[in-house]
Amino acid sequence: MRDFSQSHEQLSLNTATVRKQWKLDRIIDECARRGIGAISPWREQVVAVGLEKVAKQLRDTGTELSGYCRGGFFPAADAAGLKAALDDNRKAIDEAKTVNAPCLVLVVGALPGALDGKAAYKDIARARGEVRDGIAASLEYAKNVGMPLAIEPLHPMQAADRACVNTLEQALDLCDELDPGRSGMLGVACDVYHVWWDPKLQEQIARAGEKRLLAFHVCDWLTPTRDLLNDRGMMGDGVIELKKLREWVEAAGFAGRCEVEIFSEHWWSKPGEEVLDTVIARHKSMV
Amino acid sequence: MRDFSQSHEQLSLNTATVRKQWKLDRIIDECARRGIGAISPWREQVVAVGLEKVAKQLRDTGTELSGYCRGGFFPAADAAGLKAALDDNRKAIDEAKTVNAPCLVLVVGALPGALDGKAAYKDIARARGEVRDGIAASLEYAKNVGMPLAIEPLHPMQAADRACVNTLEQALDLCDELDPGRSGMLGVACDVYHVWWDPKLQEQIARAGEKRLLAFHVCDWLTPTRDLLNDRGMMGDGVIELKKLREWVEAAGFAGRCEVEIFSEHWWSKPGEEVLDTVIARHKSMV
Repeated sequence: MRDFSQSHEQLSLNTATVRKQWKLDRIIDECARRGIGAISPWREQVVAVGLEKVAKQLRDTGTELSGYCRGGFFPAADAAGLKAALDDNRKAIDEAKTVNAPCLVLVVGALPGALDGKAAYKDIARARGEVRDGIAASLEYAKNVGMPLAIEPLHPMQAADRACVNTLEQALDLCDELDPGRSGMLGVACDVYHVWWDPKLQEQIARAGEKRLLAFHVCDWLTPTRDLLNDRGMMGDGVIELKKLREWVEAAGFAGRCEVEIFSEHWWSKPGEEVLDTVIARHKSMV
Repeated sequence: MRDFSQSHEQLSLNTATVRKQWKLDRIIDECARRGIGAISPWREQVVAVGLEKVAKQLRDTGTELSGYCRGGFFPAADAAGLKAALDDNRKAIDEAKTVNAPCLVLVVGALPGALDGKAAYKDIARARGEVRDGIAASLEYAKNVGMPLAIEPLHPMQAADRACVNTLEQALDLCDELDPGRSGMLGVACDVYHVWWDPKLQEQIARAGEKRLLAFHVCDWLTPTRDLLNDRGMMGDGVIELKKLREWVEAAGFAGRCEVEIFSEHWWSKPGEEVLDTVIARHKSMV
């Protein structure tokens, strides 16, 4: 297991962590200033600054990417919606290529309309079928472009509205079905927040192996958790065994960046500088 | 599949559903008045009225039980805590016997102290071991008394503080380990709220079969869900495919009561009469 205690050279910042404090160009500069050598940005943050401008800034600052957020949201109420989702995923793949991301993270979607409180249908098996078909179609394009797709299983509490892939086992079953040759072009993003509770976690991380483990995200699970989306904890403030989980992914062959992604009204209310300094300190002591 | 549309004779009310409106003696009377022939009461509600008094009222009104809530909370920070939990579970088994319950529902517990925001340890595998040992010890006593134990897998969002058994598969693995002979004395309580999202749900319900399916609970999953504990929906107001899930448990051999259990600040704020009338109507139309 790698020693993170002396340096944060393996740290990457998911830029949602300070999205309410700063625009992306400022985030990139603040990271570079602190020796955070990698980020994982969100599409809307990139668009707000400009894709080419972001790509140039990344090159100029020597900032790498640990992922690009996000593709997915495949299920839809009708054929037009399904097609629009595929078009949008192709666009996301192109953007990811432009900023030289190692993978496009897929938040696969769930019951269409549920995010707005009006599910078009309740059949989660249908949504899962549409996800499978959407990934299959996107994978073809991704292979042509050379952009690996990372399916991110989301916590079961987000199964209705954000992602109906909810365990590592389910994500890996999809990988095996759609990419039986383990080409390296389809894998998973393993975010401890979503999977820490899973009694089969260690077994499924080992099953994933180096070829399928495309990203590793950390934060913490707070007790109590007051919101299903925006109450994630800073590493060390919750109950997730972060070092144990990192040991498992590294034993399986993962040697990439460790990405900190904290959706939190609490941390969004703090000065961005304080958040980044805390992220660095906790990455050394708790991850 | 049984026809529920014309009658609510298979309906049971988990009495937490109206716990803020009425004490248990009033709840039993209001249920009897409406032809709700069964309830599943909570220990604190029973204690507040008096165990013997409740037992007599149940007999006098001809009210049956679909379960008794609850045993469990096995993990503890130290040996004294572990022993206290076993003692309390024996007491719960005795109470369940006194009120003639068909099973004692187990909310198994999780990281000790996490419910109060101060987890004594973070090792969820340790908590799961303590749960296994606690059920094993309680099962011996339960067999002597003749009170089946129903492990209730809780939603993964409650894995830290309430129950570290979070899928039907995990609960059934425990059953197979501790009761390989399928004696009927150890099984599961299948609550749609906790398990609806699980991609392996149908397969695991079939695996459980009649011998292991000791209880079936319904409510609904709202979008959005605003609280991790007390924002459950009335049947039909959310996205769970209730009829499909009931079909699965009945295909597996379940022929018991269908228990409505709704923890909801919204429904707790309504008159109890309105809640019960709505439960009956939705049980006929949506379950």
